[in-house]
This record gives sequence, C-alpha cells and structure tokens, in this order.
Amino acid sequence: MTAKKTALVISAHAADFVWRAGGAIALHQKKGYDITVVCLSYGERGESAKLWKTPGNTLESVKAARRNEAEAAARALGVHDIQFFDLGDYPLEIGRDAKFRLVDVIRKVQPTFMMSHSFYDPYNTDHAYATKIALECRMIAQAWGHNPGQKVLGAPQLYLFEPHQTEQMGWKPDVFLDVTEVWDKKIAAVQCMEGQEHLWKYYVNVAENRANHFKRNSGGQAGGRDARYAEGFQSVFPRTVDEL
Amino acid sequence: MTAKKTALVISAHAADFVWRAGGAIALHQKKGYDITVVCLSYGERGESAKLWKTPGNTLESVKAARRNEAEAAARALGVHDIQFFDLGDYPLEIGRDAKFRLVDVIRKVQPTFMMSHSFYDPYNTDHAYATKIALECRMIAQAWGHNPGQKVLGAPQLYLFEPHQTEQMGWKPDVFLDVTEVWDKKIAAVQCMEGQEHLWKYYVNVAENRANHFKRNSGGQAGGRDARYAEGFQSVFPRTVDEL
Amino acid sequence: MTAKKTALVISAHAADFVWRAGGAIALHQKKGYDITVVCLSYGERGESAKLWKTPGNTLESVKAARRNEAEAAARALGVHDIQFFDLGDYPLEIGRDAKFRLVDVIRKVQPTFMMSHSFYDPYNTDHAYATKIALECRMIAQAWGHNPGQKVLGAPQLYLFEPHQTEQMGWKPDVFLDVTEVWDKKIAAVQCMEGQEHLWKYYVNVAENRANHFKRNSGGQAGGRDARYAEGFQSVFPRTVDEL
Amino acid sequence: MTAKKTALVISAHAADFVWRAGGAIALHQKKGYDITVVCLSYGERGESAKLWKTPGNTLESVKAARRNEAEAAARALGVHDIQFFDLGDYPLEIGRDAKFRLVDVIRKVQPTFMMSHSFYDPYNTDHAYATKIALECRMIAQAWGHNPGQKVLGAPQLYLFEPHQTEQMGWKPDVFLDVTEVWDKKIAAVQCMEGQEHLWKYYVNVAENRANHFKRNSGGQAGGRDARYAEGFQSVFPRTVDEL
Amino acid sequence: MTAKKTALVISAHAADFVWRAGGAIALHQKKGYDITVVCLSYGERGESAKLWKTPGNTLESVKAARRNEAEAAARALGVHDIQFFDLGDYPLEIGRDAKFRLVDVIRKVQPTFMMSHSFYDPYNTDHAYATKIALECRMIAQAWGHNPGQKVLGAPQLYLFEPHQTEQMGWKPDVFLDVTEVWDKKIAAVQCMEGQEHLWKYYVNVAENRANHFKRNSGGQAGGRDARYAEGFQSVFPRTVDEL
Amino acid sequence: MTAKKTALVISAHAADFVWRAGGAIALHQKKGYDITVVCLSYGERGESAKLWKTPGNTLESVKAARRNEAEAAARALGVHDIQFFDLGDYPLEIGRDAKFRLVDVIRKVQPTFMMSHSFYDPYNTDHAYATKIALECRMIAQAWGHNPGQKVLGAPQLYLFEPHQTEQMGWKPDVFLDVTEVWDKKIAAVQCMEGQEHLWKYYVNVAENRANHFKRNSGGQAGGRDARYAEGFQSVFPRTVDEL
Repeated sequence: MTAKKTALVISAHAADFVWRAGGAIALHQKKGYDITVVCLSYGERGESAKLWKTPGNTLESVKAARRNEAEAAARALGVHDIQFFDLGDYPLEIGRDAKFRLVDVIRKVQPTFMMSHSFYDPYNTDHAYATKIALECRMIAQAWGHNPGQKVLGAPQLYLFEPHQTEQMGWKPDVFLDVTEVWDKKIAAVQCMEGQEHLWKYYVNVAENRANHFKRNSGGQAGGRDARYAEGFQSVFPRTVDEL
Repeated sequence: MTAKKTALVISAHAADFVWRAGGAIALHQKKGYDITVVCLSYGERGESAKLWKTPGNTLESVKAARRNEAEAAARALGVHDIQFFDLGDYPLEIGRDAKFRLVDVIRKVQPTFMMSHSFYDPYNTDHAYATKIALECRMIAQAWGHNPGQKVLGAPQLYLFEPHQTEQMGWKPDVFLDVTEVWDKKIAAVQCMEGQEHLWKYYVNVAENRANHFKRNSGGQAGGRDARYAEGFQSVFPRTVDEL
Repeated sequence: MTAKKTALVISAHAADFVWRAGGAIALHQKKGYDITVVCLSYGERGESAKLWKTPGNTLESVKAARRNEAEAAARALGVHDIQFFDLGDYPLEIGRDAKFRLVDVIRKVQPTFMMSHSFYDPYNTDHAYATKIALECRMIAQAWGHNPGQKVLGAPQLYLFEPHQTEQMGWKPDVFLDVTEVWDKKIAAVQCMEGQEHLWKYYVNVAENRANHFKRNSGGQAGGRDARYAEGFQSVFPRTVDEL
Repeated sequence: MTAKKTALVISAHAADFVWRAGGAIALHQKKGYDITVVCLSYGERGESAKLWKTPGNTLESVKAARRNEAEAAARALGVHDIQFFDLGDYPLEIGRDAKFRLVDVIRKVQPTFMMSHSFYDPYNTDHAYATKIALECRMIAQAWGHNPGQKVLGAPQLYLFEPHQTEQMGWKPDVFLDVTEVWDKKIAAVQCMEGQEHLWKYYVNVAENRANHFKRNSGGQAGGRDARYAEGFQSVFPRTVDEL
Repeated sequence: MTAKKTALVISAHAADFVWRAGGAIALHQKKGYDITVVCLSYGERGESAKLWKTPGNTLESVKAARRNEAEAAARALGVHDIQFFDLGDYPLEIGRDAKFRLVDVIRKVQPTFMMSHSFYDPYNTDHAYATKIALECRMIAQAWGHNPGQKVLGAPQLYLFEPHQTEQMGWKPDVFLDVTEVWDKKIAAVQCMEGQEHLWKYYVNVAENRANHFKRNSGGQAGGRDARYAEGFQSVFPRTVDEL
Repeated sequence: MTAKKTALVISAHAADFVWRAGGAIALHQKKGYDITVVCLSYGERGESAKLWKTPGNTLESVKAARRNEAEAAARALGVHDIQFFDLGDYPLEIGRDAKFRLVDVIRKVQPTFMMSHSFYDPYNTDHAYATKIALECRMIAQAWGHNPGQKVLGAPQLYLFEPHQTEQMGWKPDVFLDVTEVWDKKIAAVQCMEGQEHLWKYYVNVAENRANHFKRNSGGQAGGRDARYAEGFQSVFPRTVDEL
C-alpha cells in the first residue's frame, strides 16, 4: 500500500499562499494530494491596509477578517487542512516553541514537497525569515533524536513560490506548472482576498505571462504546449531521477 | 505514432563525453533513446599528453589514436551515432560553416535533451566555448528562416555535465541521475581512454560520491533510495510540468 | 545655447525596440529628445516564424515585411531616425566595419543615454551579443585617436531594457519609468508587429505590472503615485548627482 | 504647502555616519533637508581602541567621549537631530523595544531617503546587522496596523554608504554625489574623531578618488564635470522616474 | 622569543572537525602548532541516527557516545585541546554567554588561523550559523573594550572547511593542503566515528580527488607535485604577503 | 640547480602595468625575479587623449610617444624585458598568430606567476578581453601537442591586478602585497606617464589605502604590520600549500 501524497505550504501571512501557490494547491488536490497550509501570521498589521483605513477595526477584528478570507480561499482551492499559527507580523517572530510546533506539522504531514517564500526580500523581511525557518524546521524534522520514536522526515523538495517584484528578490523560477485546468479555483480564491483587490489583476497578468513561459520552454514556435495559466517555482534542492 | 526519443551530447574534446556523461548515455540508450555524440575536436593537442610523451607521434597519429579510443568508448556505451568535427583544440575554433554543420545535426536529431560543458572554465577555455556555441546553434536551429522547409527545433533542455574541479567552474548540479545499472558500461568506456589512465580512479570516486548525493536528496537517513553510482547535471532552462 | 537632448536605442532585431523600450522612446520624444534607433538586423530568420509559415516568402520578402513593420512602429512612437544595419540574425555577426559604422552613429547622435539588451540570454545569443558590441562601440566612440577631430563621446548611461523571461536573464531593473501618457503610442507601435500578435497581450501585462512596481516604489500603500503603464530598465553605470 | 525634505541615517557606531556619509549629510542640510542621525551604539567596546589604551578609562567614560565626538561632528555637519540608542556594540543587539523605538523615529522623520551600512561585512557583523534591522523597521513603519492612526511610511530609498574595504563587502556604488562644496564641513567633522586619527587621511583619499569616479561617469575625458570630493552610495530599491 | 603557533577549529557538531579538517589538524600539530577544537554541540539529535536506531539510547547516552568518539578522534589527530560547549543541535542555539565563552577561548588561544563551516547550507542550518557566530566572536575578541586588559585578537584568517555537497553550498576552495604524510592519522580519526560508517569511504574519495586538484594546480601534466591525499579550504579574508 | 624565478605581466595598453602592478614588478625584480611585460597595444587611440589634444600628432607619433613612456617606466621598475605586440586598441584585436606569439613568450618565460586585468570591465572591453586571451594562451602553452618538443607550461597563478573603479568590475582582491620598499621606483615609473598626469595622485591614494588594508588584515589594532604602500590582486586559481 502506497502512502498518500501530501504537500505543505508555509505562508508568512494569510494571503501569500493564494497569490503565489493557489494554482499548485488546487491542481495537486485534484490529483489526490492532501495539501496542508500553515499561515504563520494573519498579515494583520502589515498586509491589511484597507481594513485599517476603515474606522472601528481592532487587531482582533482584522485578524478575524483575514482568517475568514484565508479560510474561504482555502475552501475554494480544496485545501485539506489550514492552520493559523498567529505568530504576529511586521515583524514575524518565531521562537523555539513555534519551531517545534511547525516540526510537528511537518512530521505529521510527511510532505512530498514543501513550499515557502524567496530567499531574499528587502521589502518584506517576514518573507525570507519564513523560508529560513522552513529550512531550519525541515532539518529538525529529519533529526532522529528529536522526539525519538516519531517517523522522521525524508528529503522533500522546498519550492520557493513567486514573490512580488521577482527580480528585486533574486528569485529565478526553474519549473513552470500548468494550472489552466484549475484556474477557476484559483481565481475564486483570489477573489476571497477582498482587502487586496488591487492585486487581483496583477496576479492574473502574472499567470498569463507564466503560461507564455511555459509554452516557450515546452517547445516555443515549434509546437510548445499551450497553457493559458501557469505558476513558476524555484527549487532549493537537486532532484534525483532515473531518466533525464 | 510517437517519435523516437533522442539526445545530443556536444563534447569539446574526444574524451569529455565519457567521463562526464557516460552513465547518462548508456542509461538512456538502454531506455530506448538514440544518443548522438558530436566531438568538436579530438583533444589532440591539449588532452593527449601521454601520447606526445611517446616518441614518434604526429598530429595525425594522435588524432587517430584519440578517435579510436572515443569510438571504442562509444561502442561500450551503446552510442547510436558519434561524429567527429575535427575543428582543432587548444584553442577550439568554430566558424560559421561549423556552426551550420552543428545546426544540421541538431535538426536531424531533434533531441529531447542536449548536453555540453559548464558555462565557465578558467583552466580550459575550449569547454565554455563549446557551450556558448551549443546555445548559439540551438537558437539557429529554432529559426524558421534557417533552411526554410526543414523541421525546426523545439526547446530541448541543455544539461551541463560535470566539469573537473566543479567549484572553480561555478557549476552547480540540480539533478542527480542513478546510473548504477549501466555502471559496467561506463567503466568499460572509461577504460578505453588509455591515454588518461590517471583519471579512471578519479571518476569512479566522483560517481560513488554523487550516489551519496543521490541518496541524500532522495530521502537521506529516513529511507533515501540506494544508488551506488550517479552522475550530476546542471540545467540551463526551466522545466515545464503538470505535477511538481 | 544648450545641446538638444538625444538618445540611441540599439536593437538586435527589428521589433525589440518596440516591446522593450517603446514607451521610453515615445515619452522622451514628447519631452523633446531626438531618439535614434539602430536595428542591427531585421530578425528575418529567427523572429519571423509567422511569415515563414506563409507560403511564398523569401529572405528578401521577409526582411522587407519586417522593415515595414519596424518603420511603422517607429512612426507611431515618433522616432527621430531609424537605421537598419542589415547584419543578419541567428546569428547576428558584427565585424570591424559594422562596429565603426555604429561608432559613427554614436558620435553623430552624441546620446544622453543609450539602450540595449540584457547582459545574458541563453535563449537568444544575439541579444547579449548586441549589448557586448554596444559597450565596445561606446568605448571606441570615446577614443580621441579614433577619427581624430571628430567630437568624442562623453559617458552616457547604458540602460538594459526588459528581456523576455527576465529572471532567466539575470536582469534586474533599477529604474521604473511611467509611460502612461504615451501608452496610446506604444500600443499603436506594438500593433504594427503583425507577425508577433501572440506577444501583444504579453507586453500589455508587463506594462501594467511594472506600473504596480512603479507605484510600490514611489510610496506604496502610503500614497504611491499612480501609474497605469510603466517600463523597467537596468543601468550599467553609476549615476552622478548633486542631490540624492 | 509641501512637506520639508528629511533624511534618516542609521549608524551602527558613533563615528560611522561621519566617514561614510558626512558629505551627503552636510550637503543635504545645506539644501534644506533636516537630517536625523541615529547612532545605535557608541562603538565604545570595539571602535575606541585608542581610548582603551589610555589608562583610567571605563565603559562609561569611553561612551561619554565617543558621544562628545559624535555630537561635535554632527554640529560640524549641521545635523538637525542626533539620537543615541546606546544598545551596545561588539556585538550590537537590537530587541523588539529598540526596533519599535527606531520605527517611531522613522515615522516621525518620514524620511525622503534612509542610509545605513553594506549588506555584508565579515570584519564587523554589527554593520550588516544594522542594515538588516533598518530594512525590518522600514517595513514595520509601513504597516497600517502598527500604532494605527499614525502616519505610515511611504517607500524611501535606502542607500548603503561606503564600507571599509569595499570589495570585501560586495558593495557596489551606483550613485556618486559631489560633496565638494561642503568638504570643509566634512573634514571638520572627521577631525572631531580624535580617537581614530589613523583614518583621517584614508577617507580624504577615498573622497578624492570618488571624485575621479564622479568625473569619469559624468563625461570622462570628453568634458566630465569636475569634482574634487565625492561620496558613493549603493541603492537598495529601484527608482521611479518621469525621465531617464 | 616567538609565540607558539596555534589554531582554533570551530565545529558545529562533534564529528565535523574530523571529516572536514582532520588532515589539516594532524599536519599542523606535527609542524608544532597547538590546535584547539571547540565542538559547539555533540550532534546528538541530528547526526546520530545510527545510535537512535539502537534501542535504549537516551539523549545523555547519545551525547556520551558522541563525546567518546570525538575525543578518540582528537587523540588520533594529536589535537592539543578539545572542548565541548554542549549547546544543543538541530537547532544549535548560541546565546550571549556562549558567545563570550567562545571569545574567551579565542583570546586564550590567539589562533594563527581559525576554521569553521561554509557560509551557506540549506541542508543544515547549524553549519552556517556556527560560521556566523565564529565571525561575530572573532570581532568581539578584537574589541579593546571587551574585558579590558586581556590581550586582544589580531586578524587571523578564517578558513571554511569542506561541506558535504560543496556545490549546493556555494563553497569554493582557494587553497589545497597536502595531507599525505598524516593520512594514517586522519583515517584513524575517521574510523573513530562508528556511528557514521557510511561516510568513511565518501571522505577517502574526497581526499583522493582533492589530491588530484592539488597536483593539477601545482603544475599539472608538466610536473605537478604528487600528493595522494589533500584537503581544500575557502579563505574569508585577504592574505598579506611580501612576495606573491 | 634551481630555475630562476620569473613572472609575466600582460598589459592591454602601454601604461596599465605601471598603475596596476608597478610595485609588484619592482619588488619581485629586487627579489631576483626576471619580469617580462607584454604590452598588447600602446593604448594609442583610447588612452592618449592628452597627446591627441596636441596639434600635429599622428597615430605613429602617438604610438612612439607611448612606447617611450612605457620603456622609461619599465626601466624605472627594473623590468627584465618589455615587448610591444602593437595589436591596436579600442578595440584590441588578437588573432591566431598573435595568440601563438603570446604562447611563445609564455613558454620562453615559464612564469612562476602571470598577471592581467579584471574579468569584467564595462568601461573598457579591451581589459577583460586581454584576460580572456591570457587564459586561453595559458591553456595552449600547457598543451603537449603545441610545438611538440618545447617545454610545456606548468600551472602558474594568474593574478588580476587592480582595475579603475574596482567595484564596477566585480574585482575582489584576495592578496595584498607590501610595496613600501620599492615605492620610489613605482612613483618614478608613474611619473613617466606624462600623458596621464591626472592619474598620478589617484594611484598614490590607492596605494596608501591598500596599505591600510594590508595593516588591517595583518593584525589591525592589535599589532598589524605597518605598510605605507601596497597593491592588491585577485587570484584566479587555488593555491597549493604544505602549511596554511
């Protein structure tokens, strides 16, 4: 009996997994993966400008609103499980307990692959910090001496999903994923992010242009496979294969 | 009816394809690919020290000897076709005619993937030059206006095979290929290179250690798949996939 | 009396200046600059697939068609002067005479700034080659001993305009230019490129998303200046200023 | 009514702002900017060797001496406001409270531009750490949910000023500022740093040679603008412009 | 009277100094250096899989076993002094007290050179973290205001020893050391690491291949000096010499 | 009987060896090395602005003047042999014959070390081109099949000497050489460059500041060795040593 395929998406703020990996999530759910999303924070302080411009909001009401949006988006994508660590944002701070909590999730999920942010982001230090912690927790989850008796982690790929202003982040995609067949789910999820409506069109443009890159790299003018929407990812680790 | 899978290996000197891609060649031949190898030169001036230390050799006799070795190695690997462009080495020089000859080969082979050297090599400028030309010819082969009517090239991956002193070349493998099942063929091919016996042990060590990397990246201490011999490659272009 | 401001755009193929710098050209023409465009080739072999798929075309007819498109686009943008060097493409080859011809243009134009392609492009070696030559000719144009008596060149900035698949090229924009007020001209120029209609939507998306980057870097959620369309450029040389 | 122009310089140790940005400070003060300098530490442990070699000094006396020097230098440069956070050095340690204190300053100043150290410094880990914190606090200051009701920060440039041994730090200036007209103020400020007299000549040399770079990049042998003293800076973020 | 030559090796886990610097340690001990090794942790949680797979082990028994192995290896290499900081691993955490303890060691040893891990390691965040701390403590040890009256540190080189999967770490050796004459000691030390027998062959291969690099860079086919075993290191700081 | 130590400096233009390596040349001559300098061009077109501004000069008269200056500088430095290849500048062009001529020199000199320009220079493409050729000719000189019977080259280090505007060239020195004891010779040589008097002070400043770096890296405030003038170099190849 083979194990169920799973994946784990580590999102610094509540909405990041939607813009940056919504297509990958919906597609892999459709293929039978169970995808778990961990939102380290709600993005309540730094990524909720529209709410804060509305009178009467408080930290708690903003967090609740962001959580609702994220949960709705997760449902639209068919996410198996979404967890909110509520660690605060701007800045995100992850102590020893939170790391071990994340390790627990990693070990329970036993992901085939993991996802997180780019290595560098001068606009948003929470993003690169989340990835730094993702790598640290991946390492801890591999340690036989951490909670001995638990099943240790293997060596899942860590994909870095697309940041805003890719070139400023030094992010370089090495794999394009055709998400055309689940695009309706991604767009539905995107539209759950009511507080960031200014980004909807932006990420539609991104997906269309990544589809151009998909086509270009799958054959170009000589018969590249058509794709209308795609997402790009940067791999951290080498692949191991039996055929190139 | 699907087209036959093919690959094209562009080797600056006669022996490069053996040390650096012999396992990949034998493995893909076994899987039904037709592999074509183009040796741009025989390595007659710069990579035949042992022969030159033997009295009586001339440029022609050295080239003949190197050709014999390369052909024997190609046979050992099951290479479909090996071609010698005889363009000279140290320095390798590739003019317009030679480029178009290489384009002809590329178009005829219609490779699923191509292979060549690292982007940078301060020890051996022929190596990086071969890769520069490989990219240029890949581009020409894609041009609808080059020999109109011929089938143009799609967008094959270009893999950079392992250079000597990898770190000095800035080469970083992103894929490891398990070549255990064809190791006997690679070692047979390596042993055809009588003029460079000092490198046999070196490349056995490389293959063993790359197998360790294969294992580490396929699961590590938590059940990484065993491999006794592997080869590493660096991809130039992004992949296009339907599942991560 | 102050000299007229001028700029020089060096385009490897006939259409490059349109997609990558059309807004900058139209905007600076409107501001009173005289912009000269040099098309080193027509892109006749490699960037005219649609024409080649049409029966009856020849190298000459394709070149004529591409020239017509480029001239129409130049008119739409208000280009002061467009010159076709007709050096061939895929591969572009630039000998000593062609270099000196380009130096002549540079010296005659005495550009306030120059533009060309990204430093690196594994998909299209003509692009990076054009930039290499642009730098070489900029240097020659500065030499007091080249055609003594002519006015030598100062130290114009060289902007690298946006390549396709920016991240694969290692291109990083350090300046965003708001081209909203001339967008109608750019879109008119883009639509002159009848042979590459599949790219129209692509570059509209790019301009919209670069406008988002413009806004983000001019103030973001705290009052970033609105822009609907923008272009990005990477500077090669440091700026010299009297105020930061 | 337009807002007053302001800038904020974040200096890891008391003297850094003098050597590395003294000219920029004096020049912009002269142009009507209000410049605020924050010294995160006095450099009391690690950058006061001369004082420690003098018998009788204590941590408090060294801090007092360094503060006096920095205040005198600030006066010489016409600094609008200088603040000492006294967070300790070698190592500098910046906790949550200190970060929020820095955010308060950033929001109050609303800087047109900010300045801090290079991204990397293997000789002095305090330097890169200060820049890391500067970016983090810039982000927090942009968060609408941080102290709601306060005026949030826009998107000021962060300039990295010149480190010692620039090449070892991977620091690359992209803008040179002519500081000739305020050189008397910078040299007066430099001479306030009595404990580091061995560096006076060093930074005069730097300013003279940066003036050469200014001239070279503003026209070179063909009429580059003369400058006798200049400072160089590396920009972190792209610029947004209406004319190149 | 000249001071005794000394060196300090900072090892994140108990076994790192053996695989990565065992030859350098034994060789310099033989040349009269006193080498001090600091093991920041025992690698008890993350690098002791074999022990944890054996029933009955506890954190304390694993630490004891690892300590025994490391002490035996140190004896085999002739290490002058080995200290165990027992700071925990996966993740390694180094607070202010531990830093100052390391500074005390650095000042006492006054090393001619220091050694630690590569700057980057996505597989093992403890490694790069150890190097970060090594640089920070080197800086603190140079501060005249830290424990005034103690002898401050000069400017010892920091060598980064060879990581596993060098290319993934961006590690580039700039010096190769011939360790042939002490190879028996290194192999004896390696064989003390009973829990990691799978790595013995791996590091023999590495040493043989580094010897090939030694030979290649000391003359190659034209009389490169023979070496059977070598180790490679990357220098962080520039050298200062009287002859090239 | 040991061979005489020798070195070879490859200078793109007549004056480069003076500014960038004059101290190293004079120092090694004093230590008994025979230094050969090859000037690939006179810098007659691009680096002789002052002469061209003087009425009556011709290409030949400028070349003669530059040659005189270079010979005088070589004498001041005690250069063993200076050769002028007269290949033209702006652009420098090096064909097959010129390469083989350079190989002849390399083989005759059998240099302990070689020197040339930085790898990258957007201001001056002749510089990086000279280094590219230096590496190519080093390779050819190592080929047993090139002029069989001649003594082949070993593996000399290639040092990249200091370019103008180091940070723009991505040049990073890894070795500093104290040239204080031959400074009078370097300054005498510098003053032979009458056409470039504007650079004299510049390179005095450079040498003084490199001496500061020398001191800093040889011990800093804790007893760094004093040096008044130094030069910096970047090594291309790893070193091979018996002691770190």
